[in-house]
Amino acid sequence: MGPNTEHARGFGALDAPLSCAVGEVRVTEARRKLCGWGYEGQGLTAAEADVFRDRTAKRFGVPLEPRATAPQVADFDLRPPRLAPPASLEALFRDDPYERLLHAYGKSFPDAVRMFRREVPEPPDLVAYPETTDDVVRILDWAGDAGAAVIPFGGGSSVVGGVEPAVGDSYAGAVTIDLLKLDKVLEVDRASRAARIQGGARGPHIEAQLREYGLTLRHFPQSFEHSTLGGWIATRSGGHFASLYTHIDDFVEATTTVTPQGVMETRRLPGSGAGPSPDRMVIGSEGILGVITEAWMRLQDRPTHRGSAAVHFADYAKAAEAVRMLAQSGLYPSNCRLIDAQETATAGAGDGSTSLLVLGFESADHPVDAWMKRALELTADCGGDHSASAGRSHREGAAGAWRDAFIKGPYFREVGVPMGVIGDTFETAITWDRFADFHARIMARTAEILEQATGRPGSVTCRFTHVYPDGPAPYFTFSALGDWERLAGQWREIKLAANEAVVDAGGTVTHHHAVGRDHRPAGYDRQRPGVFAQALAGAKAAVDPDGLMNPGVLIDPQGRDVGVTGAMAP
Amino acid sequence: MGPNTEHARGFGALDAPLSCAVGEVRVTEARRKLCGWGYEGQGLTAAEADVFRDRTAKRFGVPLEPRATAPQVADFDLRPPRLAPPASLEALFRDDPYERLLHAYGKSFPDAVRMFRREVPEPPDLVAYPETTDDVVRILDWAGDAGAAVIPFGGGSSVVGGVEPAVGDSYAGAVTIDLLKLDKVLEVDRASRAARIQGGARGPHIEAQLREYGLTLRHFPQSFEHSTLGGWIATRSGGHFASLYTHIDDFVEATTTVTPQGVMETRRLPGSGAGPSPDRMVIGSEGILGVITEAWMRLQDRPTHRGSAAVHFADYAKAAEAVRMLAQSGLYPSNCRLIDAQETATAGAGDGSTSLLVLGFESADHPVDAWMKRALELTADCGGDHSASAGRSHREGAAGAWRDAFIKGPYFREVGVPMGVIGDTFETAITWDRFADFHARIMARTAEILEQATGRPGSVTCRFTHVYPDGPAPYFTFSALGDWERLAGQWREIKLAANEAVVDAGGTVTHHHAVGRDHRPAGYDRQRPGVFAQALAGAKAAVDPDGLMNPGVLIDPQGRDVGVTGAMAP
Repeated sequence: MGPNTEHARGFGALDAPLSCAVGEVRVTEARRKLCGWGYEGQGLTAAEADVFRDRTAKRFGVPLEPRATAPQVADFDLRPPRLAPPASLEALFRDDPYERLLHAYGKSFPDAVRMFRREVPEPPDLVAYPETTDDVVRILDWAGDAGAAVIPFGGGSSVVGGVEPAVGDSYAGAVTIDLLKLDKVLEVDRASRAARIQGGARGPHIEAQLREYGLTLRHFPQSFEHSTLGGWIATRSGGHFASLYTHIDDFVEATTTVTPQGVMETRRLPGSGAGPSPDRMVIGSEGILGVITEAWMRLQDRPTHRGSAAVHFADYAKAAEAVRMLAQSGLYPSNCRLIDAQETATAGAGDGSTSLLVLGFESADHPVDAWMKRALELTADCGGDHSASAGRSHREGAAGAWRDAFIKGPYFREVGVPMGVIGDTFETAITWDRFADFHARIMARTAEILEQATGRPGSVTCRFTHVYPDGPAPYFTFSALGDWERLAGQWREIKLAANEAVVDAGGTVTHHHAVGRDHRPAGYDRQRPGVFAQALAGAKAAVDPDGLMNPGVLIDPQGRDVGVTGAMAP
Repeated sequence: MGPNTEHARGFGALDAPLSCAVGEVRVTEARRKLCGWGYEGQGLTAAEADVFRDRTAKRFGVPLEPRATAPQVADFDLRPPRLAPPASLEALFRDDPYERLLHAYGKSFPDAVRMFRREVPEPPDLVAYPETTDDVVRILDWAGDAGAAVIPFGGGSSVVGGVEPAVGDSYAGAVTIDLLKLDKVLEVDRASRAARIQGGARGPHIEAQLREYGLTLRHFPQSFEHSTLGGWIATRSGGHFASLYTHIDDFVEATTTVTPQGVMETRRLPGSGAGPSPDRMVIGSEGILGVITEAWMRLQDRPTHRGSAAVHFADYAKAAEAVRMLAQSGLYPSNCRLIDAQETATAGAGDGSTSLLVLGFESADHPVDAWMKRALELTADCGGDHSASAGRSHREGAAGAWRDAFIKGPYFREVGVPMGVIGDTFETAITWDRFADFHARIMARTAEILEQATGRPGSVTCRFTHVYPDGPAPYFTFSALGDWERLAGQWREIKLAANEAVVDAGGTVTHHHAVGRDHRPAGYDRQRPGVFAQALAGAKAAVDPDGLMNPGVLIDPQGRDVGVTGAMAP
């Protein structure tokens, strides 16, 4: 399998803590890698890296050697900070090179390339670590006075340029607000199955704090270990459940967001019909309206009943039809991931002749036999064969093999990038009536652009991360061998072509990776209705009149020319 | 039972067409009542009206006679229209007194009072009947030039002053846009189970057009016959499903909205993570951003498997606990309405000693026995007794009795109002941890204000229309006997006190009746975060810079002093 990517969110049956998670160690005590996934000390073993290199070299028929070493702080000569923190808040700020480098990029492919190439022209001038919502208010007040752009930073796992302080010259500087210290579950309402959780809390730490109540958020994006509640809400993260509760959106009961115009705290309500939902304006706002400092989240009881099956299909069209029937059945499987034949084979879960449907049900209330029985009737009607998975749990067999590969995916990039391996993903959603054509068109166009950009054939595979009654969320993984000297440009050419193809064919530029800066030029800016962009800009101007919040993400702030920045800059 | 109200949306197993529906008759051929529910010729029989009067008279211990006759067009001396339609669009406009009267009010209690009292100081100056989205664009363009306020009008069944052209003197006049002629299902995508439907299509007509495809929207608010798709979306209508798909919100796949700044057409997407959802800004916007002319809606297969049960509880607290367990079970009952003992008795479905849980499951895919079996285990654990409903369908027994009363409810008002009977409802949602105290407090406060406002004891009952894992949506029905001369004032005193109590106790001023004008002063204006009001005003100013769209609803347009208008005006 080519290097999978961060935020591939959503394969499945990931129960916290993950195998490589820091578990209940306070993340504040672990040191985050300057470049690459996770904490220092985490990653592939030397032997795993060798296997990956040899396999990739064989695949492309060329010898591969790293062209760059992992970046160190001493390698960089950063421009001096353009801002100084105010005396009254000085204890909250950092401006040392490690902190500025750590917050210069997210975890996208071009982010890794630029770090390996020691290219960091626009690091944040300052990094702030607030400890309370009030600290965030004070920091925004100061930023307003100072004319500084503000970049909210959760886990920093954005793969779309969502945390990059590339704000141009119309600001006095850029300050990144890292929510790391807002990491607590503050309150648990057992009867309503809800908890008030701070925006900077990471997945494992949330789960650890909820465990004593027998509760779980059950939101497991691939980035689970290294991303935060506030980040999930800001980016409409996709999680564990393949159907029904796919995005974080529906788990949000109430939010607290600090905007430059003050704190917006919504009411805890199970449901409401009082005007457009205030929470839905915050959900997906990607930091352009304010900083999400806490949220009341709807939780689940920890599941006690489970059923899982691996269903193989020789005919991909019939497999997709089976998924459509499942998605429309009202059975609501917790796992329903269709992985195409090539991706199944690459993960070691098949021989390349069949696509694999990983199917699962779970409940804290009742056995799920009736649900699974009916689901397997539906898949059998479409030619699915589940005989190989009989009696195996979701951690064994083909499904288990896929799961292990999924969890390790993000760690491959730091090995692949310095060898020139371009590996990335893009994800979307499309209605069923258009899926077959859409899939054929995107697969063909991606294969074409990979070869055009790199001069060699690449590979592209597809799986469904989530499914809906009206269509699937296909997730495309591609890899190719580029040239070290032209790597960022080659990636950009591929990414722009893929985004354009997806949007032209009627899909969304992102199902759950967010828009950030990178998905704008060929995607979001062409996809969102112009009138909506006006409305969103109007809402932003009302709560952020100086355009301080995450400029360049989603829309340009009024009166500022941020332009195309970061990884997409021509 | 006291006069139930319009928009009591959501009791349950209502399968279209309703018993009193016009069915597949084109609604354009039926003549809508000037005052009262439905079409001319529909309503209670004389015998039913007599029974209602006698029962009410007996209950309050006073003789009751109507103090006013049903209003006729000739009774009114309307102010002359302040606007004339442009020559190019003249064929789309009407300005005769019937049309202006028909569009002067919605269907709230004070609307009926004012019609019976012949008080219509602010009718629309013109009524437009567009036949296409382009017509709406042209009408808005003209309204902008003319400086006219624009009131979008679907079925006109608002119970919150949502369609009232009481816009004050800062506009050149008010034009109501009635979507009646945009009533078609334009396109059906069978594979994705979705259809493109025009905003003015009423419930029965939508269902009739979908039936040949074996599909159904299954959105059955109590107003189903007389309300429209666009109205449901604009007001976040609550429908058939008691759990999971409670509001219309989740059925919306894409929308087309005409704003003064142009048409906003969103993409058909099963799911997306590309920024805040454009549809979620339109959903609940109550006409202040534009006119919803069509939407792609997610549909259901017509159910073929059903299970229902009527479960009686002697202990209300335990009944609520059973509902909480059901809501958190992952079983997702289609019906799960808990009706308190008094409301059950009033509907003729019990003797007043037990509360009634109407429970139902349905599926087009699989038998629901396993679902119902587990649900009844849960209710039995909480002391529920379902023995009386064994073997009966949802149209028989206690559940059937309640259903019949529910459907007839809205027709009682035109009999009750002229006799001074105050009957209305308010509905909300609250998390489970606060429910018991909330319920006790609201019941007590409502009883208190009823007596205070009318000088006599009234009655108040409660049911759940919808339930969520984190809390129920309680729906309160009250009735009292007022004085004909002071009826509107008495109602206002009660309504303001109830709204205030709900919001002070942590609830929402509305779960699915919308905000309109009436829910603002004591409710929405105190409930929504101030920063969100700023953001919404900013979004509105961007797409409706002159503040033409439905002024006074939800928020005041920037630069206009609309103030407290309509039924809530002191």
